[in-house]
Amino acid sequence: MSDLPKRVVFHEEGPREGFQIERQQFSAKDRAELVDALAASGLEQVQVGSFVSPKAIPTMADTRDVFAAINPRSGTRYTALWLNENGYRRAADAPNITLDGKILLYTTEPFSQRNNGCSVEEMRRRQSDWVDLYVGDGVVYEQAYVLTAFGCNFQGEVPLSDVVESADYALQLARDRSLPLPRIVLADTVGRANPEEIKRRIGAIRDLEPNAPIGLHLHDTRGMGAANLYAALEMGVDMFDSSIAGLGGCPYAKHANTHGAGNICTEDMVLMCSEMGIETGIDLPALIEAALMAERIIGRPLAGKLMHTGLATN
Amino acid sequence: MSDLPKRVVFHEEGPREGFQIERQQFSAKDRAELVDALAASGLEQVQVGSFVSPKAIPTMADTRDVFAAINPRSGTRYTALWLNENGYRRAADAPNITLDGKILLYTTEPFSQRNNGCSVEEMRRRQSDWVDLYVGDGVVYEQAYVLTAFGCNFQGEVPLSDVVESADYALQLARDRSLPLPRIVLADTVGRANPEEIKRRIGAIRDLEPNAPIGLHLHDTRGMGAANLYAALEMGVDMFDSSIAGLGGCPYAKHANTHGAGNICTEDMVLMCSEMGIETGIDLPALIEAALMAERIIGRPLAGKLMHTGLATN
Repeated sequence: MSDLPKRVVFHEEGPREGFQIERQQFSAKDRAELVDALAASGLEQVQVGSFVSPKAIPTMADTRDVFAAINPRSGTRYTALWLNENGYRRAADAPNITLDGKILLYTTEPFSQRNNGCSVEEMRRRQSDWVDLYVGDGVVYEQAYVLTAFGCNFQGEVPLSDVVESADYALQLARDRSLPLPRIVLADTVGRANPEEIKRRIGAIRDLEPNAPIGLHLHDTRGMGAANLYAALEMGVDMFDSSIAGLGGCPYAKHANTHGAGNICTEDMVLMCSEMGIETGIDLPALIEAALMAERIIGRPLAGKLMHTGLATN
Repeated sequence: MSDLPKRVVFHEEGPREGFQIERQQFSAKDRAELVDALAASGLEQVQVGSFVSPKAIPTMADTRDVFAAINPRSGTRYTALWLNENGYRRAADAPNITLDGKILLYTTEPFSQRNNGCSVEEMRRRQSDWVDLYVGDGVVYEQAYVLTAFGCNFQGEVPLSDVVESADYALQLARDRSLPLPRIVLADTVGRANPEEIKRRIGAIRDLEPNAPIGLHLHDTRGMGAANLYAALEMGVDMFDSSIAGLGGCPYAKHANTHGAGNICTEDMVLMCSEMGIETGIDLPALIEAALMAERIIGRPLAGKLMHTGLATN
């Protein structure tokens, strides 16, 4: 059998990535209740929302209110996304937040322009400033996201060499400041990965720096999310971003139907891990309850499988 | 990288397994048009319907009419399911059909009783008669299905030894008659497999008889279908049952919500294979058209991902 990790950590993205793509505005109260339900299942990290332009993503304009409304649980980190220094400052001011010092590196110009309004090179320069900002604030530089690391819906193919170069840049930012190496998170932002490519690209990052931990941000856009996660487990990857009930999708990803473009589904992937003997620390029935709560809030059937078929009772 | 097969064959089950679980009756004309669309995509085999008790499965009572209404395409085999000799006789009488000589072996008493109304042992005895029947009719004994090979919703766990014993019985039926070995198809009838168990059980069948080809009948009941297929590809398996748009589910499988219990989705799995360089002989845009046709006929959003997000255009 394969050399799977003994324990895997899931970073829940549903309250942020799941709700940002919706046209409708959902109340801070409902979203905070969902965050509480997710935390109650034992998730170590829940991304509550984003501090980004309220014009671009109006559904996230009240993220601070969501943070204020949660009942924080010991053992769960409540995090947020920001795309610039101003967003980071607003995040730092939110109650109940843990600032996970992360940077974002683009691999293609068109997605960098659409998502962040600047060039790949300019974004890189800014990330160097972000790391200094984190160090100055006593925030650990812990994660470096390499976006569209498996392909981009605007550019198409993303050469592996560009992904490796981005990861190298992120690692060098730590080395230059004598900081511990951050986790390199390869993001399949638009759901173009396949299992063999997952292995190939993870292998390349490991060849670049065997000591850097690796994570994956996966989407199930084309139905391969579970296979991609399994391929990563076979490579020993032990940290995944996922969304409750399979919510999610990037508003700038260019999909025919954004509702099909969700993240990998947290509860389905937790089940898969636990069925294979991998610990997750998560109470699956409680997580399924959270998925059903998300479905009630969103008000349409969501993509998760286990939430609809139920745990096997025999 | 893994030792994946160069070519994989998909046996389409949607028109049979997808429609048998619906409460509503769909016209033979609509179902025949769907069969034609599926065949036009290049699928080598399409299961058109079943010849079973019209009282138990009324939606399949007119399967003969569907066979009569199709426009057969050279290169596609049009097959059917039967559960007893009477059903086989009716199938043999249908126009445009290819009789694929298959047998069905149960691994648990409760599912055997519910699905076939007899004991595991009695069903085995009957399968021996079926093989004689096939030989007498000049039909090749080509496939042996081992049902609930990864677990049963009534019994729970299914010991690996019971699966191996069933496969051994199927192989012995061929050896006793000096026939070529049939393909052993492990059926995850109720969607309880996980990728590691897929590898373990395929490995056990291969240890039993290295020369028997192996196939899998998979369901995506709990969101692991793609991962299970990938694990099987890593074991060199090159034949899979699947359903267009992820339709399907066994009416006697005991699920909370049968609509969540579909087979693995043909077009999503074809994409996964082709993205990894595995040939399938299938025209993917034509297959997506067939999925959209299935959705129009059924009249509700279906589970397939690719059909909703679309092929990447860049």
